[in-house]
Amino acid sequence: MKEGRIVNFNPGPAALPLPVLEEIRESFLNYAGSGMSVTEISHRSSWFDDIIDDAVQRTRRLLGLDDRFHVLFVQGGASMQFCMVPMNLLGSSDAADYVNTGTWSNKAIQEARAMGKTVRVPASSEDRNFSYIPKDIPFSTDAAYCHITSNNTIKGTQWATEPDTGGVPLVADMSSDIMSRPIDIDRYGLIYAGAQKNIGPAGVCMVILRQDLLDRAQDTIPTMLRYDTYVKKNSMYNTPPVFAVYTVQLVLKWLEETVGGLTEMEAINRRKAEHLYALLDESGFYTGTADPDSRSRMNVTFRLPSEDLEKRFVQEAHEQGLGGLKGHRSVGGCRASIYNATDMKGVETLTAFMQEFERQNG
Amino acid sequence: MKEGRIVNFNPGPAALPLPVLEEIRESFLNYAGSGMSVTEISHRSSWFDDIIDDAVQRTRRLLGLDDRFHVLFVQGGASMQFCMVPMNLLGSSDAADYVNTGTWSNKAIQEARAMGKTVRVPASSEDRNFSYIPKDIPFSTDAAYCHITSNNTIKGTQWATEPDTGGVPLVADMSSDIMSRPIDIDRYGLIYAGAQKNIGPAGVCMVILRQDLLDRAQDTIPTMLRYDTYVKKNSMYNTPPVFAVYTVQLVLKWLEETVGGLTEMEAINRRKAEHLYALLDESGFYTGTADPDSRSRMNVTFRLPSEDLEKRFVQEAHEQGLGGLKGHRSVGGCRASIYNATDMKGVETLTAFMQEFERQNG
Repeated sequence: MKEGRIVNFNPGPAALPLPVLEEIRESFLNYAGSGMSVTEISHRSSWFDDIIDDAVQRTRRLLGLDDRFHVLFVQGGASMQFCMVPMNLLGSSDAADYVNTGTWSNKAIQEARAMGKTVRVPASSEDRNFSYIPKDIPFSTDAAYCHITSNNTIKGTQWATEPDTGGVPLVADMSSDIMSRPIDIDRYGLIYAGAQKNIGPAGVCMVILRQDLLDRAQDTIPTMLRYDTYVKKNSMYNTPPVFAVYTVQLVLKWLEETVGGLTEMEAINRRKAEHLYALLDESGFYTGTADPDSRSRMNVTFRLPSEDLEKRFVQEAHEQGLGGLKGHRSVGGCRASIYNATDMKGVETLTAFMQEFERQNG
Repeated sequence: MKEGRIVNFNPGPAALPLPVLEEIRESFLNYAGSGMSVTEISHRSSWFDDIIDDAVQRTRRLLGLDDRFHVLFVQGGASMQFCMVPMNLLGSSDAADYVNTGTWSNKAIQEARAMGKTVRVPASSEDRNFSYIPKDIPFSTDAAYCHITSNNTIKGTQWATEPDTGGVPLVADMSSDIMSRPIDIDRYGLIYAGAQKNIGPAGVCMVILRQDLLDRAQDTIPTMLRYDTYVKKNSMYNTPPVFAVYTVQLVLKWLEETVGGLTEMEAINRRKAEHLYALLDESGFYTGTADPDSRSRMNVTFRLPSEDLEKRFVQEAHEQGLGGLKGHRSVGGCRASIYNATDMKGVETLTAFMQEFERQNG
């Protein structure tokens, strides 16, 4: 691979598009003629204004956001949103619906409950180890919002489409599939996504928020935990994570100008996932862990006949320049995370390796 | 200047040591033989373990921390600490002392009060526009902690030494002078510092916390806002801001191995500041705004005879490759921020320009 680079199947932080990394490196000592590194420019400069404005506008175009929506950049990752969402959106006399589809959904539920908020769980896939996405969910019509985890990085499942919540605003943790496909924005009240899987490096979380939900926040919420703080100051109430926002901007530019948008990105992601799942389905050696109709196009989870073989599989793949294939420590097995920046060629390199490994060990 | 770089007097984000930037650029597509950019490595990898452990150990050595202290990396900047400090350290029946030395002190006070906490202000320099650091402060012996802002970026003042709080733990916002000089660690209970002035890029805040203060936190504090979350997981409860922590590590390495430690750094910083203040004191054209005994060695604030001249000064300096000399928008005037990464040569370039500007306009 170019410059000794591996094919990176890490679940997050994850692969970034090579042209983005090259552009960062190219201008790293002198950004846009400023005479400074992008890590040294002021967040009150026209250079950074241009960066964040461009990132916001590209997000608007890519996701088809209308004027009802704000695009914010917040620190603390999705885990900080687990508390900010109920803090800002859920009053003491209200209740929210949370669908439990695995580790991250469960963390969101626990965090809201620990804050004394009322959370109902109208559906869960815990009965079969979170290997599927629940259907026909009895959402409450009086919920303050309905929360889902759109893609489950650890369990390898993904909502095929947005559920019908009967007009109740959908709140989605989209950390691991944001910008991987078009969405029906009319369903959503709030979307949040840690950047480090599909849109950037660790250190910034994108929050997309519908204007009418802003009114729910109590005055007692600390400044840095209020969404309106970020809305009023264009995410610059205090110093934002400049480098992370800059990298997100470049990834979004790559998505628009090189890939061609989310419809094109979805087609590529579908082909990558189908190629990998086809191998799993045809093999008696590899076994996919998610129900076929709930399979994630971002994280393909699978098992081998034994843990010994899984260990050797990960090790040998690593030696051949295929990194990050170990499953999450809480579930074991193997996982290939194939986010936007992983191309078809990388996936084909993996399937070729998998076939050879099966031939030698099957 | 090398690669068209300017002398950067920005108040933050600010200049970083050139060798640090060069090292980041050099390995940006393939970090330490990993085959990945540092922005792509997993935070659960041995590569990142080595980075964060090295950053912590260097912090311990540079500041002389013993085992009582934890070194944490938190997102959200110092502004997030304005709420986390009282949330974790100040019970509902306790009170804390906050000294008011300007904009940032005041924000810390306002944030604690907005959360319903009891804050006393035993001293303030508001009477003379925050141009000095108060002396002989009547700290309360029963305060939960005493909060100071060790260096005031906007007003150009700095505490010459730690105040005597009579054993009450000192809590310091050290965002703009951390690692600029040795400190007397025995005075402190907690230190926090947004990295983007002296130790890194925007996007991470260093928190140094004494073990015994951990016990004060109530169970109802959200996970991401509790210090013990960061203590228990070595700042990796969730994905940390990998790139920012990495850059901090490199800056600390530069401080230890190239500069030679904080005693050496302080000597350099003293010479830089004395050189600049000597010019102000000898000039009838430039006027320093801070009382001589309260002057900051990090942010040198000064006025010219008129706002028109100040505007022209900043503009002409910019054209000659001296950037970021405009005073904060809330106070006007001029300001040269001369943090660790700004060397004596840069300061001499500035004073030569100032003398020439005075000759032409005085």
